[in-house]
Amino acid sequence: MSTSPVRKALNIKNINPHLLKAQYAVRGELAQRSEVYRQQLAVANPPPADAHSAPLNDVEGAQQNGSTLPFDAVISANIGNPQQLDQKPITFFRQVLSILEYPTLLEKEGLFPEDVRERARVLLKEVGSVGAYSQSQGCLGIRQSVANFIEARDGYPADPRNIFLTAGASSGVNTLLNTICSHPATGVLIPIPQYPLYTATLALVNAAPVPYFLNEATAWSTDAKQIRSEISKAKVAGTDLKCLVVINPGNPTGATLTESGIEEVIALAAEEHLVIMADEVYQTNVYSGKFHSFKKVLRNMQKASPGVYDHVELVSFHSVSKGMVGECGHRGGYFELVGFDPEVQAQIYKLVSITLCPPVTGQCLVELMVNPPAPGSPSHDLYEQEYSSIFEGLKLRSRALHSAFLRMEGVECQDPLGAMYLFPTITLPTAAVKKAREEGRRPDEFYCMRLLEATGICVVPGSGFGQREGEWHFRTTFLAPGVDWVGKLEKFHEGFMNEFR
Amino acid sequence: MSTSPVRKALNIKNINPHLLKAQYAVRGELAQRSEVYRQQLAVANPPPADAHSAPLNDVEGAQQNGSTLPFDAVISANIGNPQQLDQKPITFFRQVLSILEYPTLLEKEGLFPEDVRERARVLLKEVGSVGAYSQSQGCLGIRQSVANFIEARDGYPADPRNIFLTAGASSGVNTLLNTICSHPATGVLIPIPQYPLYTATLALVNAAPVPYFLNEATAWSTDAKQIRSEISKAKVAGTDLKCLVVINPGNPTGATLTESGIEEVIALAAEEHLVIMADEVYQTNVYSGKFHSFKKVLRNMQKASPGVYDHVELVSFHSVSKGMVGECGHRGGYFELVGFDPEVQAQIYKLVSITLCPPVTGQCLVELMVNPPAPGSPSHDLYEQEYSSIFEGLKLRSRALHSAFLRMEGVECQDPLGAMYLFPTITLPTAAVKKAREEGRRPDEFYCMRLLEATGICVVPGSGFGQREGEWHFRTTFLAPGVDWVGKLEKFHEGFMNEFR
Repeated sequence: MSTSPVRKALNIKNINPHLLKAQYAVRGELAQRSEVYRQQLAVANPPPADAHSAPLNDVEGAQQNGSTLPFDAVISANIGNPQQLDQKPITFFRQVLSILEYPTLLEKEGLFPEDVRERARVLLKEVGSVGAYSQSQGCLGIRQSVANFIEARDGYPADPRNIFLTAGASSGVNTLLNTICSHPATGVLIPIPQYPLYTATLALVNAAPVPYFLNEATAWSTDAKQIRSEISKAKVAGTDLKCLVVINPGNPTGATLTESGIEEVIALAAEEHLVIMADEVYQTNVYSGKFHSFKKVLRNMQKASPGVYDHVELVSFHSVSKGMVGECGHRGGYFELVGFDPEVQAQIYKLVSITLCPPVTGQCLVELMVNPPAPGSPSHDLYEQEYSSIFEGLKLRSRALHSAFLRMEGVECQDPLGAMYLFPTITLPTAAVKKAREEGRRPDEFYCMRLLEATGICVVPGSGFGQREGEWHFRTTFLAPGVDWVGKLEKFHEGFMNEFR
Repeated sequence: MSTSPVRKALNIKNINPHLLKAQYAVRGELAQRSEVYRQQLAVANPPPADAHSAPLNDVEGAQQNGSTLPFDAVISANIGNPQQLDQKPITFFRQVLSILEYPTLLEKEGLFPEDVRERARVLLKEVGSVGAYSQSQGCLGIRQSVANFIEARDGYPADPRNIFLTAGASSGVNTLLNTICSHPATGVLIPIPQYPLYTATLALVNAAPVPYFLNEATAWSTDAKQIRSEISKAKVAGTDLKCLVVINPGNPTGATLTESGIEEVIALAAEEHLVIMADEVYQTNVYSGKFHSFKKVLRNMQKASPGVYDHVELVSFHSVSKGMVGECGHRGGYFELVGFDPEVQAQIYKLVSITLCPPVTGQCLVELMVNPPAPGSPSHDLYEQEYSSIFEGLKLRSRALHSAFLRMEGVECQDPLGAMYLFPTITLPTAAVKKAREEGRRPDEFYCMRLLEATGICVVPGSGFGQREGEWHFRTTFLAPGVDWVGKLEKFHEGFMNEFR
């Protein structure tokens, strides 16, 4: 051989440069280190049968847990993963899924309520076997249920042919951005702060994110004037603007858009001929105010001003991972296309067909989410009770966490309105900023790393979502049970401020 | 507004041009038309409770089925989707999954064998809830089971840190090609005929497929000399060759590589510094001869010639969709990286983390596939019986179909060795070729469309996989139950030949 045998075909310098550019902090260095800690704790101190009920000891716990870590448990507040923490699955959903996996259970009289059995029969007829590939776009009967749900929610019809079931919203966003982005100057307007799926995917498809800032001072509102100003700048820079992303309720901000706020965004998109990507996965996580879907508002506008908004292209994403369903691991979701050119829609179909179909149990969960037990059916009362208990729990914990932030020195935080997150601003002492720079870290990363090392609480630095120059934030979920961990967070913060004051 | 309101942001001329280029015939026009027929039949003539046992009437059936179609059922022989057809899921697997979905079933004494309950307990401890996101690479315990399986299969150790669980093999191939392909001249050697996932994904990532022909005359064998000649040509053309894809057992060919055949390929890849992508999803679908994994052969070569092959980079794909498992709808699989640069591996981790994690029940199915009930355990005998009955059924049907092809005029077909497919050559009469051209179709597409229209049997034209100029093939699975449909195929073929002779 003429070349050295140690030469690899692939190295960091010759692989896809767009992959190198992509950043995804939600599962980045901090999350990976938290997993290492979790394994260390598991090895040093095997958890009791129900790990969730293990007490979260204070810093002195190090002497008891058998590891050298100053905490007894990792609190994964970095990711909206409800069932990893406190949230129990909805019984009706899981009973139906257990029959779909093993239909022989249908023969056991009395094992499940009759409406569970009936739903399982209907879904089995629809999918055949959950082990068979479905149509690439998802089972037609399930897409019909989604259409019925959208119609009941919005008061306007929906067509199952325009609905695509997906492996979670992420996969749908990936499909759409891969379709829309045609060259490096294709521009996609992205809110800042944003869920980093958007910038990461745009990096991968080699298109241009065009950031627009949300207004922290007014509950992280979306400001059409601010978007217009970014559009003007992008046009001057030669960007071929194609799409406007809105996350409502917001991630990481929790903001919930008003009806008039949505109207402004739609009017702007109509004028500028931008596809609207409405990430509406938190549509049931609204603790104050009301969720308005982009589809409903668009249809209202089309009715009120015939002809003016008919050309608007909207795609709305939903998911089984969030809300009171919280079934992240099942990877289910859908998107609805509104106003798309049929030829473009055919290309989207082809793209999803290359990976065959979304997970079929995830598809069935979509059906269960959009068509829960009806009033009067045997499972209805339990469903309602579980659903509201999860909802009230999230609401309560969001407020408890918010109150704690208000008590903390140099921390400001908008009221919790929606989603599963708070995104406080932290004013860090100059000495901390300096120390961070010495370690080659951004100050918010430095703060979050210290928090993890001291308490086992894993949050995501604001730089992972984008923030204004010189501002620092972090995102935390309010999914973790109890309030002990909030106390630990407060205590850490006090110590940190004292150390660097 | 200054522009016409009917102008759409997206049209067929301005979306991603690489998407337009991608072709995926397995779910293309024929498959879509077959779905329309299926719906027409369902509306005209609702199926009995067990649709699979519905008799497949002959052409005269048109008068009975209430539709205007000359057949009573669509036979989806276009796609390896075992559970859509005859194949029943393995009981042990589905019993465990039903508990994972609804762990309360663990409390019902006597409902399931003890080893089912025990496995469910172990997996629940591993994943927490199947509704929670797992680690992006997949649950560590499940990756450890995969490592154990690989070690037992190959006689060489495997490391769970190099194993990535995926949503089926397609998703893994997508991840790897997205990592490897860095610019439009990146070359990936692809067997022809090939499963079109490869060319479709290369079109999407805008890289250069470099086709090499398999030898139909010698059971579709892989010929290193032929690959070398393509490499030389590609180099002259300025292609930056990075990767060599091998599908073993072959899709659509069913060919199974010999140990020495694999050695030749590895030696070539070592010499040319090419990453080997070994698509080994049909590793248990071998009806003649024996499956040898690329990993095992590579380790043997590394042992025999120290230093010479240490630099080889290999990725091997496996899936729960094929084999006797056949759980396509659950979207589970894995890939193992061998010899990859750790920095590159970290980028692969980042890429998979952007879509969070593979479906967790799919991950659990991977565990069940690689770690089935042990001899002596309560579920072992049933498992063995189900497993061999599926295997023997596939083998028998492959032979029955093969014999039919040998009887048909102008049809030649290699012996069925592996996978789930036969890929016969058809010599079409000149009049048929002419008629096809008049309809703007390739002759093999024309033949397959006529077959579908006359019999409801859906197969995939050879042009969807690639074939030599002037040759025509089609791919059919041998999954459909019974032999009636084979009789219909023979009858159609005779009529077709008579029509165009």
